[in-house]
Amino acid sequence: MTTPIYLDYAAATPIDDTALRVAQPYFQAQFYNPSALYEPAREVRRAIEGARGSVADVLGARDQEIVFTAGGTEANNLAIHGVMQANPGSHMIVSAIEHESVLQPTMQYDYSLAPVNEKGIVDIDAIEALIRPSTALISVMYANNEIGTVQPIKRLTELVNSVKTQRLKSGNKMPLYIHTDACQAANYLDLQVTRLGVDMMTLNGGKIYAFKQSGCLYIRKNVKIDPFITGGGQESGMRSGTENVAGLISFATMLQKVQKTKNAEVKRLSELSKSLSATLSQKVDGISLNGDAKKRLPNNVNISIAGVDGERLVLELDERGIMLATGSACTASNDEPSHVLRAIGLSDEQASGSLRITLGRHTTPEQIAQATDQIAGAIQNVRLLVQ
Amino acid sequence: MTTPIYLDYAAATPIDDTALRVAQPYFQAQFYNPSALYEPAREVRRAIEGARGSVADVLGARDQEIVFTAGGTEANNLAIHGVMQANPGSHMIVSAIEHESVLQPTMQYDYSLAPVNEKGIVDIDAIEALIRPSTALISVMYANNEIGTVQPIKRLTELVNSVKTQRLKSGNKMPLYIHTDACQAANYLDLQVTRLGVDMMTLNGGKIYAFKQSGCLYIRKNVKIDPFITGGGQESGMRSGTENVAGLISFATMLQKVQKTKNAEVKRLSELSKSLSATLSQKVDGISLNGDAKKRLPNNVNISIAGVDGERLVLELDERGIMLATGSACTASNDEPSHVLRAIGLSDEQASGSLRITLGRHTTPEQIAQATDQIAGAIQNVRLLVQ
Repeated sequence: MTTPIYLDYAAATPIDDTALRVAQPYFQAQFYNPSALYEPAREVRRAIEGARGSVADVLGARDQEIVFTAGGTEANNLAIHGVMQANPGSHMIVSAIEHESVLQPTMQYDYSLAPVNEKGIVDIDAIEALIRPSTALISVMYANNEIGTVQPIKRLTELVNSVKTQRLKSGNKMPLYIHTDACQAANYLDLQVTRLGVDMMTLNGGKIYAFKQSGCLYIRKNVKIDPFITGGGQESGMRSGTENVAGLISFATMLQKVQKTKNAEVKRLSELSKSLSATLSQKVDGISLNGDAKKRLPNNVNISIAGVDGERLVLELDERGIMLATGSACTASNDEPSHVLRAIGLSDEQASGSLRITLGRHTTPEQIAQATDQIAGAIQNVRLLVQ
Repeated sequence: MTTPIYLDYAAATPIDDTALRVAQPYFQAQFYNPSALYEPAREVRRAIEGARGSVADVLGARDQEIVFTAGGTEANNLAIHGVMQANPGSHMIVSAIEHESVLQPTMQYDYSLAPVNEKGIVDIDAIEALIRPSTALISVMYANNEIGTVQPIKRLTELVNSVKTQRLKSGNKMPLYIHTDACQAANYLDLQVTRLGVDMMTLNGGKIYAFKQSGCLYIRKNVKIDPFITGGGQESGMRSGTENVAGLISFATMLQKVQKTKNAEVKRLSELSKSLSATLSQKVDGISLNGDAKKRLPNNVNISIAGVDGERLVLELDERGIMLATGSACTASNDEPSHVLRAIGLSDEQASGSLRITLGRHTTPEQIAQATDQIAGAIQNVRLLVQ
C-alpha cells in the first residue's frame, strides 16, 4: 500500500508544530493555576490574556469579548442556552443545515427551522418571514461542515438591523442577536466580526490545527447572556473551570496563523478541489456536486454518486489508503442520512451515496491525483460488486 | 533566591512524564476524529475505549458508566443539571463547603445547604432532617479542597438507602441519588464506587498530574440524567463534542498511577504534613489548624494565623520562593472570605488570615523544612510591619 492520504480535514486536523511548541511550557514548567496569587501563576494569567488579545485582534473585537471554551460544541451550547435562558419564553431561528451542536440545544426551546435552497444557501426571505416579535436569536453557520456552502451572513445582518429598527420604533424590547458557527470557516474566510455584523461567533481549535477541545465564543459586549458552565467564575464569569492553558494558547496561535495564510490557501485549495471534481466527473458517470459551486469553502468537495453506498465506498477507500467521510464525522454513531443533504432536496438514497472530501494544509497536487484515481477505481469496484 | 518550592498541589499539578508520553501520539500521528469510519480513526476510538475501561477498573464500574468531560467543573455541572432537569420541580441538598462548581449550578434549583461541624465534617443527621419527599439529589464532596476534610460518604449512603426503602414502601417514585466531587480525593482515597455507594462521582485530571480540563463523571447505570452539552452525541449521548483524545488518555493513565501509589503517598505526605504543622506551631504563636486533624487529606495543612492577612502573607512568601494559597485558587478574582472557613465558624478576620499549604508527589522533606522556616519568618515579618 502507498502512503495513506488524509482527505478529512473537516473532521479533524493534526496539531501544527508551532501550536505544540507554544503549548509545551504549560504542561510542566508553567503548570500553575492561573488564579493563584504568586508571580509564576500570574505569569500564566498574563499568557492567557495575551492569547485572548491575539484572538480579539483577528476578530477585530475587544479582549473581554472572547470567552475560551472546550471547543466548538460547548461554544455553540453556550451561545444558544445563554441567550435563550436570559430571555425566557423567547423564540429562535436556525437554518436547517446547522451542526448538531446547534440543532440539539435549539430543540430545547421554541424554534423555527429556516430552509435552504437546493444549493444549500439559507433563504434570507424565509428567515424574515419566520421572525416573530419574540425572536431573540438567529443562528446561521458561516460555512457548512458537510457541503461547504458559505452563508450570506452580511445579508442576514442587514435584515436583523432593519428588524431592530422596527422594534425600536414599536417599543419591542426583545433583543435580536445573530450567532454564527464559524468552526469550518476559520481557515479560509474573513473573521472580522464588525464587517460581518454578528453578535456571537463560535471558533474551534480542533479544526485549525490546534488542540481538540480548544476554542472560543465571541460575545459582543452588549449581548446579555447567562453563563452555561458555572463555578469558580473564570472567563469573567461566563465559563468556569481552571483554564486549559496549553489548549487556549495553541488555539490563539493557530487562529493567527491560518488567518495570515488564508488567501494563499484559498487559491491553492480551490484549484486542487476543482481539479478533483473535474477529473472525477470525467472518469466516472453519475457524479453530482452537492452545494453551491461558487459560494463554498475552497477545501470542500461533496459529491453524490448514483448507485453507490457511501459507507461502503469509504471502507473500500480506507483499504486503498484514502481517508475521507460520508456525511459528517462529528456525529457519533448516527446511521441516519445526513440532515444537510436532505435539506437540499436529496432523496435518502442519494444522500447515503455521498462522499465528503475535505482538503487541508498538507494536501498536495500529487495526493489529489492519486486520490482521484483511487476514488474512481473504488466507485467502479463497488458498482461492479453491486451488479 | 533559592529554588522555588511549590506547595499548592490542590490548585494545580504538573503533568507527569508518563501522562505526556501517552498523550503525545494523539497530537499529530493519530490526530483523527474518533467518529470517522476509516481504520486509523477506529484505532483512536479503541484507544478511547481502552482509557474508559481503565478508569472503570479503578472505580469498580462498568465501562459505559464513565463519561469523559472537560474537567471537574463541567462534570459537576453535568451531575447537577442532569439530575435536576430530568426531575423537574425536585429538591436537592448540598453541603455548605462544596466547591463553587457544585454550589453555583445548585443555586438554579430548589436546594438546602447542609451544615458542617466546627471540624468541617458534614452533619449526616442534619441532611436527614433536610430530605423531603421531593429530594432527588444529595451532593457531598469526598474531600474538601480547602481544609482537606474527608466526608463520611458511606454513612450518607446508609442514610440514603434507608430513605429509598421508605420511599419504596410509601410509593414515592422520586429517585434519590448521591453525587460526590472526588477531585481532591483521587490521589489518596479509595475510589471504588460500590464500596462508597455513590451514584455519581466527579474526577479531574488537572489535580492528578494529567491535563487540565480532562476528567470524567461516573454515572451509575440506573441513574437517569439529561445530557448537558448536546450535539453530535459522543459519550453515548451524555457529552457531545469531538473527544479530547490526548487529554482523556492522560487522565486515565494518571488515575491508574496515583491510585496504585496512594497508600505509600498517604503515609509519606501525612508525616510531612504533621511535621510542618508541628514545627510551625512551635515556632509561631497564634496558629490553629482548620479542619479535622484526623479525617483529612494527607497533603493538606490549612491554618489560621492570628493578626495576619493571608493574602499579604502569600505575597511575602512568593518573594521568598514559596508558592501556596490563601483559600481556594479555583475561585477566580473572589475577594470574599472563604465560604468553607465561614461554614466551620471562623470569623471573617480569622478566615482572611489563613493559609492553605498542599503537598504533592514532588514534595521532599528538605522542601518542607525550608518552607517551614520561610513561613515562620514571613509571619513574623508581616506581624512586625503591622505593628
